Amino acid sequence: MKRRDFLKKAGVASVGTAAAALATPALAQSKIEMNVVSTWPRDFPGLGTGAQRLAQRINDMTEGRIAVQYFAAGERVGAFDSFDEVASGNAQAYHAADYYWKGKDLGWAYFTAVPFGLTYTEINAWIYYGGGQELWDEVASSFGLKCLPAGNTGVQMGGWFNKEINSADDFKGLKMRIPGLGGDVLAKLGASPVTLPGGQIYENLVSGAIEATEWVGPWNDTFMKFYEAAKYYYYPGMHEPGSMLSFGMNEEFWSNLSESDKLIVQAACDAENAVGMSEYNMNNGEALAKLVSEQGVELREFNDDVYDSFGVAAAEVFDEARQSSERTNRIHESFVNARSAVGGWGRIAEVAYIAQRERVLGG
Amino acid sequence: MKRRDFLKKAGVASVGTAAAALATPALAQSKIEMNVVSTWPRDFPGLGTGAQRLAQRINDMTEGRIAVQYFAAGERVGAFDSFDEVASGNAQAYHAADYYWKGKDLGWAYFTAVPFGLTYTEINAWIYYGGGQELWDEVASSFGLKCLPAGNTGVQMGGWFNKEINSADDFKGLKMRIPGLGGDVLAKLGASPVTLPGGQIYENLVSGAIEATEWVGPWNDTFMKFYEAAKYYYYPGMHEPGSMLSFGMNEEFWSNLSESDKLIVQAACDAENAVGMSEYNMNNGEALAKLVSEQGVELREFNDDVYDSFGVAAAEVFDEARQSSERTNRIHESFVNARSAVGGWGRIAEVAYIAQRERVLGG
Repeated sequence: MKRRDFLKKAGVASVGTAAAALATPALAQSKIEMNVVSTWPRDFPGLGTGAQRLAQRINDMTEGRIAVQYFAAGERVGAFDSFDEVASGNAQAYHAADYYWKGKDLGWAYFTAVPFGLTYTEINAWIYYGGGQELWDEVASSFGLKCLPAGNTGVQMGGWFNKEINSADDFKGLKMRIPGLGGDVLAKLGASPVTLPGGQIYENLVSGAIEATEWVGPWNDTFMKFYEAAKYYYYPGMHEPGSMLSFGMNEEFWSNLSESDKLIVQAACDAENAVGMSEYNMNNGEALAKLVSEQGVELREFNDDVYDSFGVAAAEVFDEARQSSERTNRIHESFVNARSAVGGWGRIAEVAYIAQRERVLGG
Repeated sequence: MKRRDFLKKAGVASVGTAAAALATPALAQSKIEMNVVSTWPRDFPGLGTGAQRLAQRINDMTEGRIAVQYFAAGERVGAFDSFDEVASGNAQAYHAADYYWKGKDLGWAYFTAVPFGLTYTEINAWIYYGGGQELWDEVASSFGLKCLPAGNTGVQMGGWFNKEINSADDFKGLKMRIPGLGGDVLAKLGASPVTLPGGQIYENLVSGAIEATEWVGPWNDTFMKFYEAAKYYYYPGMHEPGSMLSFGMNEEFWSNLSESDKLIVQAACDAENAVGMSEYNMNNGEALAKLVSEQGVELREFNDDVYDSFGVAAAEVFDEARQSSERTNRIHESFVNARSAVGGWGRIAEVAYIAQRERVLGG
């Protein structure tokens, strides 16, 4: 059965009719069309390949009954047009980092990562069992979307710089690619943060349009070749300690799925959430070693003074976020509660254990 | 359609015929029978409910086409008879912790948790991307099984004691429930470790048949009411830093599944691996606070001397494990490589980040 051709290069302003047609229940009970757009370059390790793996998994679990067609950034719409493409019903789903939409609502930022925020295991606890999914549903539903966790990059590196960062003053006037509330934190310190999709960072860094950038971590950053244009690689990032990736569906499309298809999509996303994180954790260490040994990258750790400045600036950013809306305030409070509860447990669990393991094994 | 009645209260010695019938491809293409036995008491939080949730998920994702019937410990066979029940083909799958089978092959221990071993994110990285699944397949296949990750308890507590543990000498002569290689470590220190399924620990602790026990963590241990029989609750456990739970299938049953059904079962297991861990992390902190405030439990941290003794004993245990077979030696080396690679990355990622977050937020 040939898929109807809804491919559009143009904007989404005039596709109301097509959207309505797509949003009705599957035309034949046995076949459901799911076009997935994404914010990642095709085949980009982890982000792109993970999104593609998820799309393929849904297709293959259903033997093509849910017929998934995947479009990388720019193949159907531009990376940051994914939101409107799905909210309008012109495509059925996107794979993205939801903090890209913080200009539409600051609440979105919390469902990727926020400064001094949650690690992978912590954000999962919050989303699955700490009220996070319900709040995410509130935000998403207000835009006609339904989002599920669908991957995670883990703790991100602090970024690539061409000068050492020894105090907050070193951020003054710095043009840096850093999205989300992390960018707002650096703005408080006098930087000029910009948000660019992955596919546009390298050219801007090489041309000097930006002077610094963060992206993800050693594995992903290696493929970006940032080492050609920046010397210092800082850790740990305060801005994205466990960036959750999102499978955002058109809400009406989601609502019309059968209960079993909802379970299939949910399990496919959860699976990607487990598997994708593992791929990052297995690859980052080796990639970092190679960046240092083969590319001459200099690894640096943000010092306490810099981190203290991050902390002061982040507190201001959060105050503003909480004042932006009643809902964002509720999201913030729920996030803080989860950080306290899960983080507190982590202190006597993972933190205490890892400290002893490292001490005893001399790691 | 009524399910054929293969329920057996008796042992598995004489069910070869039934097993052969079950192991053939689904009788009708549209219906596959999957009986799941488990090592957990019915409705036991996390372990039991997670296994039940997984069984239900597979059933519901397929609208009952894979007709899953779940049997808690003792409902079909005893907890530790689950292995033979599935290896023989009398049931199609178990949900268990595979270190229960270390008496059959020491290699099994590595696929739940070993002393000074891998945390949740680390073992996932090893299994999904570090060669762990392939080695697990080798062990499992030699018993006619195919196992997949299907949950995790996270870092476990060190256990319940009626005396303070100030040095390794305090383990001398101690009768303690602690399975896996962790039990072997305590044996080196002079303890008498025993392996008991969850449903039998409390009665043995109250009767004095054992003097100490570990089980999982605050959330699970609360339901066991160990606080009625032991006063001191120690952390962090060296023995199970991220106990992976296993969905072990009869290998022939697995082989006969269609590719799409394999993907469905895999995704259901991966989903449980993500979701189950989150449930533990969200519940442990609150449960621990209540144990201390409402039950008068005294929280204690193993000191460095005790941990050093654990380290020496664990090295001996690992030497013996490596000598037990060529395969176990390969598993050990793969495990050590994963611990080094992923743990090394963790030092500049999660460990460095959490340390700064705690310092800045005064957590």
